[in-house]
Order: sequence, then structure tokens, then C-alpha cells
Amino acid sequence: MAYQDENIAAIATPSGAGAIGIIRISGAKAFQILSKFFFPGTGTLNVDSIRGYEMKFGRIKDQNELIDEVVVGFFKAPKSFTGENVVEISCHGSDYILNRVLSLCLKHGARLANEGEFTMRAYLNKKMDLAQAEAVADLISAGNKAAHDLAIKQMKGSVSKEISTLREELLRLASLVELELDFSEEDVEFADRSQLRNISEQIVAKCTELLNSFSLGNAIKKGIPVAIVGAPNAGKSTLLNTLLKENRAIVSDIEGTTRDSIEEEINIAGVGFRLIDTAGIRDTTDKIEELGIVRTFEKVEKAQIIIWLIDGKNIPDQNTFESRKKELYDKLKDNQKVFVALNKSDLENTNLPPYLNLDIKISAKTGDGIQNLEKVLSDYVKELGLDGSSTLISSARHEDALSKAKEAMEGLLNGMDMGIPSDLLAQDMRQALYFLGEITGEISSDEILGSIFSKFCIGK
Amino acid sequence: MAYQDENIAAIATPSGAGAIGIIRISGAKAFQILSKFFFPGTGTLNVDSIRGYEMKFGRIKDQNELIDEVVVGFFKAPKSFTGENVVEISCHGSDYILNRVLSLCLKHGARLANEGEFTMRAYLNKKMDLAQAEAVADLISAGNKAAHDLAIKQMKGSVSKEISTLREELLRLASLVELELDFSEEDVEFADRSQLRNISEQIVAKCTELLNSFSLGNAIKKGIPVAIVGAPNAGKSTLLNTLLKENRAIVSDIEGTTRDSIEEEINIAGVGFRLIDTAGIRDTTDKIEELGIVRTFEKVEKAQIIIWLIDGKNIPDQNTFESRKKELYDKLKDNQKVFVALNKSDLENTNLPPYLNLDIKISAKTGDGIQNLEKVLSDYVKELGLDGSSTLISSARHEDALSKAKEAMEGLLNGMDMGIPSDLLAQDMRQALYFLGEITGEISSDEILGSIFSKFCIGK
Repeated sequence: MAYQDENIAAIATPSGAGAIGIIRISGAKAFQILSKFFFPGTGTLNVDSIRGYEMKFGRIKDQNELIDEVVVGFFKAPKSFTGENVVEISCHGSDYILNRVLSLCLKHGARLANEGEFTMRAYLNKKMDLAQAEAVADLISAGNKAAHDLAIKQMKGSVSKEISTLREELLRLASLVELELDFSEEDVEFADRSQLRNISEQIVAKCTELLNSFSLGNAIKKGIPVAIVGAPNAGKSTLLNTLLKENRAIVSDIEGTTRDSIEEEINIAGVGFRLIDTAGIRDTTDKIEELGIVRTFEKVEKAQIIIWLIDGKNIPDQNTFESRKKELYDKLKDNQKVFVALNKSDLENTNLPPYLNLDIKISAKTGDGIQNLEKVLSDYVKELGLDGSSTLISSARHEDALSKAKEAMEGLLNGMDMGIPSDLLAQDMRQALYFLGEITGEISSDEILGSIFSKFCIGK
Repeated sequence: MAYQDENIAAIATPSGAGAIGIIRISGAKAFQILSKFFFPGTGTLNVDSIRGYEMKFGRIKDQNELIDEVVVGFFKAPKSFTGENVVEISCHGSDYILNRVLSLCLKHGARLANEGEFTMRAYLNKKMDLAQAEAVADLISAGNKAAHDLAIKQMKGSVSKEISTLREELLRLASLVELELDFSEEDVEFADRSQLRNISEQIVAKCTELLNSFSLGNAIKKGIPVAIVGAPNAGKSTLLNTLLKENRAIVSDIEGTTRDSIEEEINIAGVGFRLIDTAGIRDTTDKIEELGIVRTFEKVEKAQIIIWLIDGKNIPDQNTFESRKKELYDKLKDNQKVFVALNKSDLENTNLPPYLNLDIKISAKTGDGIQNLEKVLSDYVKELGLDGSSTLISSARHEDALSKAKEAMEGLLNGMDMGIPSDLLAQDMRQALYFLGEITGEISSDEILGSIFSKFCIGK
């Protein structure tokens, strides 16, 4: 394999000053390359005596210049992340030192790794399938428990397992159908048509189930979009600030992860929620009172959960309420959920009209009921399937491949109903096999690999 | 030792998404703590079978929840960075995962390490002396070859070696003088006064030499301050931009290292130069022409090198030139160097008046002569002693201790001239021993250690 011939190197830790920084080399000659500039206590590195999973202390030298004192970890193929010989050089965490050591790697025969190339090699060397490799990137970028759990499950092979059993069965039947083509003159049926129908229906059902999980899976990965809507002065900004103060996401402590976005991310019970367009909400001074909630439609469209805030100090009469409700609900899509929340519950409003049909009462100002609101939000997400029992897909690539596979299988089922010949059945089956195989990487192309791994950073 | 009783843990890699992130635990119970949440392939971790310098692959679990699949490196006391049992957990580089793993360490008996505490333990466990420990921080923050070389030399013990031989000899003589005090009635002299004078003179000479190296050592560590001065329209901003474009320091690619500062850092032949107050220079529109170079005095004061730019299109007459020169040179301190550079050398100026006494001719606009200017700058720094042969001190703490030690030794020499009694001599010697010992850490106090290691970051 061409990939194996080249040795790759990259800095594997984030940039910046830290105690430790790591350079990673992978390839058949990783140890030889290292031996050119790494000198353990006893002299030079004896490449042949290296055991796997051992470490050595020594000096990195560029000719006579001492660059650093380091600890090197050795992994021997195939027992390594990439499946190749791997070296991890643990330097003092200075960008200057890391760059000097990287230069030495390149000078002595390694080339700079491409984005995600270490993980791509792990895939090419069959250390993991493609869906698992993709999960590595998700795992690294996961900023809360739910996103992390999702990535861990996928890395452990949950998505792959769901698909590969069905695909194998389809593959077996497909080879029988292909065989029929060789005997097409004789009109034989090697593949049991009822078995074929059965497996096709199972695949369609599984694709549907996984496709339905995408909007939640994707929302969990990226944060579940929440819009706070309501009449002017209902207290939207106050609620936003109260939620932010209590639940600011871990990720928002890290530069560049949320600052560039106009959305605020919060973390409730381990699930990431994105408060949509909150910069806008914050700046809103609601000058045009009469616009009501109309102007928030754009936010509503992008949200999975909508918190409709009713002003407890200014409760709308039934007509107004119903007309606004109609306005809002007319725009809703199937998977969107509205919670009607009464704000300013600290004020006296003993006679709440029943038409409001409230889900919850809060006071954004005093904080009363906020914990309850958080529970309502996280319970709703759990109900959707975040209890960990079902497999969720979170990758748009998987969604695309699944819907194409489903389409092909539906075509097959229709075709069977119409009694189409084997060669047309075979074509649908090939299509479905192709798209299912794309998910786990049994089928892959340079183009697919390129587009997947280019989203990784260098060093991964 | 109280330090040994506690096990400390911290994230050792910079924050941000990367391929690898590391958690480090140090302390007698490091392996036991790890065994509570790390499960190698074979089941649970057998703490007793751990060899040093080995690695294990396994899973980090919080009860039944899989947090990550990791590789752990084991170091057994005393063969580790801190001299204690040390564990390095190499996780997928996500802040979420690192924080979860750190929480597990804390939950199972470690406490969060203080700033620089790993390095402080290395010092307390005699893995390195104090000057070497301080060099670790310098090494990590070094952004160019010169600063890096300086830190490496100090980490290898160059400063310590210079001092400790002299200190030992002084210590031997001091104990003899102390002995005289016990026999003070008898007026004996155990310590040879000519030896004492000799060693005192050597120490004064060494302190003087090291103290003289401080301004260069410190400048190398922090970047050598350069001010570009000159009449309005001489081309200061253009020169600045030309220098920046060619030599932008590595460190300036990293957020927060130079952006917060109003100085620009450039890297010429491996040496860092700081262009002082360049934000100011850039913004300068030189509205008040008549101020000439006067307004730049503040910059000049902070600079070690001053580039005085003469406008080739508008060469001052001899009177003006001499008066400005006097203005400038009157402000100079001993260790400041001025280079007089003619700018706009691309324009015709065949008859350059000899009174200018130019060091170099450049055209900041076309780039002509810029390489030459860079060479002049880096040659000058080499001349100052950056050839690596002499030891430079770069720490203000060392400077302070050395000048106090020198003062005490000078007091001793004066005292001997005046024939003061042994008890007064002993007092000066104790002083000198104390301050010399402070540098290498033979003498230390919690206060000194606190102030040194608080400058480190957590995890170091």
C-alpha cells in the first residue's frame, strides 16, 4: 500500500505553552528516523531491541546542538493506533521545541502528515472501520456528556454493528441473484425471494430508524437548538442570562469554540443546548411592540425546542393568545417542540386563564422555577432517545448514505412487486450494498476518504 | 516530607482540541489512584507488577461509563521527572475528556497540583537544583533559538556550576571562621586569611561577570529591545513593516503571546528582537514635524539597540545632525548601542556628507540592505557574548541574589583590610553563603519557592 511506504510526522498536542508537547511519527521506518536524532542515556538507539509499549529517556540533538531532554514511547506494528510502527516524543511543551523536533523528523525521512492521516491509516490498516474513525474526530470535539457518549458509542462500533449484519445478509443474497444472471436463459431463482423481501424490509426499517435518529444525533453533537420567543418584555433576555449564568458550557471557556458564533452554548445535565441567535436576542430592545413574536420566526425555524415565554405581568387575552399560537404552530415542523412558560411568576397572578395551557411557571428574574425548566428540557431530550439504549447517527454523511440505501431497497421491493427481472433487482442491490458499505468503509474511494479526513486536524 | 504525602494531578497539555491530551499524576499512590478508574485489556490494573518506563493500553471508566480509551505511561520512583511515582494518561485530546479524567483523579485521592508543583517536587526530591527548575519554565516559554539555548544551558546546570564550586570553598572557610568564634578568647586563626581573601576576590569577580551578563541574558530571554528612531518621514513605519514581514517570530503565531503586548517580536538568525512600542510607531502620523526625534526618548530608554534612521531624501545639515545626535547620545546608557542607518538608499544620494558616519544604508521600501541590517543586528548580539562560550544569567531573582552576595563579599574584603574581628567576618560570609545558596536552592524558603513556582502554569 502506498500509504505504508511513507513515514509521517506531526505535532499531536494543541499549540501553546504547556508542560508537555508531543510529536508523533508513524510508518515502517519510524524507529530508524528517530534514531537519527534521539540519543538515550546509553548512547545511540538500538532499533532492533525496541519492544512495544516501552519508553526511553534521552536527548534530542540536531547535530551537536541539544534541543531537549525527552521521553519517547514506542509502539510496534501492528499494536499501535495506526497499526504501523509509532513513536511518540514527549517534549517540554514549547512550540519552538516542537517545531525543531518536527523539522528533525522531516529532515530524516518523514513527511508532514496530512489532516487526519494517522486516523486514516488506522482505518486503512483495519484497526477501525470508517464510522469508528469518524467518531475519533467527534470524540475530540465533544464538549459535553451527551456528545461525548454519542461519539464513544460510535467509536465502539454501534453504528457499524447495526448496519453490517444486515449488509452481510444482503450481500449473500446479492451474490445468489448475480449467479442467476449467469443462468438467465434458464430462468432459475437461486435467491429465495421471500428471504430477499424480508431482508429488504428489515434494511428499510433499520434505515428509517437510523434516519429518524439523525436530527437528534446531529443536535446532540452540535448542541440542541433552542429558541426563546415571546412578546416584548416577556423577559427573554433575562431568561437567557439566567440560563447562561447557571449552565455555561465547558467549551465556552475555550477560545474560538463559541466566540465566533452568534449562539450561546449551555450545558444542562450533560447535554449541550444552543441558544439560537442570542446575540440578536440580547440586543433586541423591542422597539416595535406590535410585531409580537412574528419577528422571531427565523429563530423558530432553526430550533428543535421553542420556549414560548408568556409575560406574567401582561397576560394576553384569549383571542390574542390563540392568534399568536396559530401563527407559531403553523410554522412548526414535525420534530419541533414548544414549551409554554409563564414568566414573572413571582408577581401575583392567581387567576391564570386555562387557555394558556402552561407547561411551566418560572421567574427568570428571581430564578424560581429555572431548575424545573432545565429538568423539562433535559427530560424531553431523554424521552427522544438519549437514554443510551438506541443507536443515534450524527453524521450527515451517514444520513446521506442511509437514505440512498433506503431508496435502493424501496426500489427493490417495488420491483419485486412488479416482478422485474433479476438483472434489475441486482442493480438495486448493488446500489444498496454500495451505500451501506460506504458508512463502515467496506466501500471507499479516495474522494470519500479525502472529504472525511480533511475535517480532522493535522496530528490526529 | 509533607509534599510526598499528597498525590497531585493536573492536565499537562495546552487547552484546545488536539490529537492527544495528557493528565499527569505524581505521588506515592499514583498507581493506586489510577487503578480505581483505569482498566487495561486484561481486567484490572495490577499495581505491584508495574515496571517503570512501560505503557499500557486500556479504558478509563467512571463506574460503568466509558470515558475514553487511553495509553498510560508508568514511571516508578525515583526514576521519574518528579522523583515520585508518576503516571501519564494519554487521552484523546478533548477538554471534556481531560476534565472528566482529572475529576476521576481528584475523586480517587489526588488533589489538583499547584502551579509548577511537578517541577517543585523534582527540585525537592533533588532531581534538579533550583536554577535548573527555573530553567524548565524558561525552556517552555522560549520562542527562538537564542532563548532556547540559554534555557537549555541553565537546565543543564551552567549557572549552578559557576556558583557552587566557589560557594563550597567559601563554605569550608566559613566553617573554620565559625570555629575561631568558639576559641575567641585565644585569638587563633583557623581560616587562612590569604585563602579567604583569594576566594572572596574570586567570588566578587564571578558575581560581577554574571551580573554583567544579566542585561544580555534577560534581553535574550525576553527579546532584545530595539527602538527605531528618526525624523518624521524617515521611513520608520516602512522599516518596521519590512522587518516584520521577513522575520515574524514563531511565537507571534500563537494567540495571546504577543497580541496583548504593544510590542512586535521578530526573529533574526534565531534571536528574538522586540520592536518597542511599535503600535505607537505605526500609528504615528508625525503631525508635529519639529519634534524630531525628541518624542522617541521614551522608546530609547527601554531599548538595548537603537536604529537611528536618516531620511535619504532629506539629509539634515551638519548643525541639525550634530544637535540631534547630542540630544540622543546624551540620553544613552552604557549598554545601549546606536546604529545610524541611511534609509531611501534607492534614491540618488551620491554625495553623502561624511559627518553622518553611517553604519549601514538601506531602502526599507525596496528591501535593499535589509538583510545587511539584520546581519548587523545579529552580529552585534553575537559580539556581546551569544556565542555560547560564556554563561549568561537571565533571571532577575539570580541578579538580585548575586548582587547581594557580591555586596557581602565586598564588605568582607573591606573588613579584612580594616582588620575586623572574626565574628564580623563570619557574618558577611554567612550572608554571601545565603545568597549564593538561594540561586541553586541549597538555601530556600517557602516564600522563595512560592514566588518561583507560582510563575509556572499548572501541570508543569
